[in-house]
Amino acid sequence: MSRFWSTIVSELTPYIPGEQPKLPDLVKLNTNENPYGPSPQVLAALHEAANDSLRLYPDPSASELKQTLADYHGLNSAQVFVGNGSDEVLALAFMALLKHDAPLLFPDISYSFYPVYCKLYGIDYRTVALDDAMRIRPEDYQGPCGAIIFPNPNAPTGVDLPLAGVEAMLRDHPDAVVVVDEAYVDFGGESAVALVERYPNLLVVQTFSKSRSLAGLRVGCAFGHADLIEALERVKNSFNSYPLDRLALAGAVASLHDEAYFQQTRQAVIASREQLAADLTELGFEVLPSVANFVFARHPQHDAAQLAAGLRARCVIVRHFNAPRISQYLRISIGNVGECAALMAALRELLS
Amino acid sequence: MSRFWSTIVSELTPYIPGEQPKLPDLVKLNTNENPYGPSPQVLAALHEAANDSLRLYPDPSASELKQTLADYHGLNSAQVFVGNGSDEVLALAFMALLKHDAPLLFPDISYSFYPVYCKLYGIDYRTVALDDAMRIRPEDYQGPCGAIIFPNPNAPTGVDLPLAGVEAMLRDHPDAVVVVDEAYVDFGGESAVALVERYPNLLVVQTFSKSRSLAGLRVGCAFGHADLIEALERVKNSFNSYPLDRLALAGAVASLHDEAYFQQTRQAVIASREQLAADLTELGFEVLPSVANFVFARHPQHDAAQLAAGLRARCVIVRHFNAPRISQYLRISIGNVGECAALMAALRELLS
Repeated sequence: MSRFWSTIVSELTPYIPGEQPKLPDLVKLNTNENPYGPSPQVLAALHEAANDSLRLYPDPSASELKQTLADYHGLNSAQVFVGNGSDEVLALAFMALLKHDAPLLFPDISYSFYPVYCKLYGIDYRTVALDDAMRIRPEDYQGPCGAIIFPNPNAPTGVDLPLAGVEAMLRDHPDAVVVVDEAYVDFGGESAVALVERYPNLLVVQTFSKSRSLAGLRVGCAFGHADLIEALERVKNSFNSYPLDRLALAGAVASLHDEAYFQQTRQAVIASREQLAADLTELGFEVLPSVANFVFARHPQHDAAQLAAGLRARCVIVRHFNAPRISQYLRISIGNVGECAALMAALRELLS
Repeated sequence: MSRFWSTIVSELTPYIPGEQPKLPDLVKLNTNENPYGPSPQVLAALHEAANDSLRLYPDPSASELKQTLADYHGLNSAQVFVGNGSDEVLALAFMALLKHDAPLLFPDISYSFYPVYCKLYGIDYRTVALDDAMRIRPEDYQGPCGAIIFPNPNAPTGVDLPLAGVEAMLRDHPDAVVVVDEAYVDFGGESAVALVERYPNLLVVQTFSKSRSLAGLRVGCAFGHADLIEALERVKNSFNSYPLDRLALAGAVASLHDEAYFQQTRQAVIASREQLAADLTELGFEVLPSVANFVFARHPQHDAAQLAAGLRARCVIVRHFNAPRISQYLRISIGNVGECAALMAALRELLS
C-alpha cells in the first residue's frame, strides 16, 4: 500500500492466469491452449501484414474483422464487438452492462476472473450453486437480479447447459442482460449466437484463443443486440481506441476464412478428449462430461494436489484449483495424441 | 440509452481518434504517425514470431520486454510497466494512481483523452491554463491537488517543459503522483526517465507508436518507482492478463535492439520538422516551437477550419480541433520529404 495509490488498488485481488513456464520438453496441459498451431492461412496473412504499414494506427473500429464475423454468423456488423481477447471483452462488458443496483448472478463454480472484475468495478454479485452433477440449473437463478453471466460450457467443469436452458434464462429475465461466455463452445457446445436476433438482452462472448489456436494473438469478440454493442463501444472508446493491432486484425480475418482447418482441428481435439476421458475413466477417475477442450476429473483414492505435484515432477503440468467444491479435481487441457499419451503414462506410474 | 446499460455508459463522451481513411494517394498528416516504416529488424522478428507458437498465450508479465526496456534506460524491471499502447497504460494509470479526493490537474490545452478517462472513472479534475505562449508554468499548479498529468512535449502544441520545470512540479507536490506523458519526447524533448530514481511520485509514460514507427503494433510503457508500477500491475491483472500479444512483444524487443535505425529515423523527422516550420513561417504562419513530430500553426489571415477543408480537397489531411483557444490552429504531422512538399504546394495554392 502506497499513499500514491487510488483507493481501489489495495482492495483488488488480481486474477492469476495459469503459468507460462519457459521450460522445454514440458507437456503443458494447464491453460487450455490448442495443441495444434493456427491455420497456415493465418500465418501467411501475418507474414504479409508484417510490413511498413505497421507505422500506421490500426482501424479503430476494426470494420473488416467485424464484417467478417458478422458474415460468418449471419448477423450485421452493428451486432458485433471485438476486443483484446475475450478477457478484455468481458472486462468491458462488466463495466458497460453488468453493473446495476440488483446483484449480478453467476455460478459458484465458474471462471475465476468474474469476481475480480466485480471488485474492480464495484459490482455487487451473488453466486448460485451448481447442482451436485456440476450443472447450471436455470430455475435456481430467481430473485433480485441485475444481470447474469455464465460460461457455456462452464469452466473449469466443461459441462454445458443445453440451448433450451440458455433460452429459459433469457425468457425468465427479460430486463436483465444475460452474458453467455462461450470461450469453449466450438468443442461441442451449442452456441447461443443463434438466439441473438430474438433476445435483446443476450450477449454472447467468444474468443480466437482456443478453437482457432490464437491465444498468442489476443482476439475476442461479442455478439448481441446493437444497443448492447453500442454500450461496449462507448466504454471501449473511453479506454483504448485501438486494442487490436494490425497483425491481430489480419490474423483473425484469415482464420475465419479457413473453415476447413477450423473444422479439422476442432474435430481432432474432440476425438482426443473422448479418448482421454475413456482412458482416465479406466484408471478410476470420475470425469465430468465435457464439451470443452479440457476435462475436469477427480480420483476417489488420490488427492488432486498430490497428483498435480506428481505430474509436475514428471514434466506434465495440469491446473489444480485450491477452491471449495473443486479442490479434489484436476483440469486437464486436451493435448495432441503424444501429449495425452505422456499424461496417461505419468498417471499410470503415479497410481501404481 | 438502453435499460440494459450500466449508469456510467450514458454519461460517457468517448474519445474520437484521428480518422484512418482507406483512400490511396492521400497525404496523411493527421495522426502523428512516423513517415518511416519500422526497423527492418522489427519486421524480421515479426516474421520469425509468426509461427505455431501463436497457439500459446503470451507471457502475461512480459518479462523479456520489461527487462529490455529496463536495460535500455538503466532501470530495473520492477520500475517498468508495459501495456497495449500508451492509451491503455494511461487508462490504467488514471484508475490506479490518479483518482483521489483532491482534483487531478492537467493543462487546459492537452491530450483530449484525459477528460474522457476522468469521466470513465469518476475522477474530479481541474484544468490549468497554459500561458499566452502556450507553455506549461509549474507555478500555476498550486492549490489542492490529488495528482498531476501533462504531456511533455505537450499535445497538440508540441511545446516542451524543460526538465527543470518537470522537477519543480515533482518537488512542489511530493504527495501527489505526477505523470509525464512522453509520447513525443524522442523528437527533441528531455525525458524525465532520468528522474525516476530520485522521485517516488514520478510516472513517465512512453509509446512505441511514434518514434519507433509502431502505431500499428500497440505497445506503450511506463517507468516509475516500484510502488507505482505495482499499482498498475494490480489493476492490469484485474482487467486483462495479456494485453500484449506475442508479435507485439517480439517486435517491441527487436525495436529496442536497433538503436541505429531509431536514431536515423528520429533525426530525419526532426530535420523535416525544422524545414517545414521554416517553410510555413515563410508563408505567413505562426508556428509554435515544436519538439514533437508535428507542428501546431495558425495563419493570421486564414481561417483554420477552411484551410483544413481546402487541404482535404487537395488530398492532404491534417488535424483541426474545434476547441477553445486552439480553433485557429492546424496540427500537422511531419511527413517524409515528399509529403511535406505536397502539403506546402497545397498551402501555397490555397493562400494565393
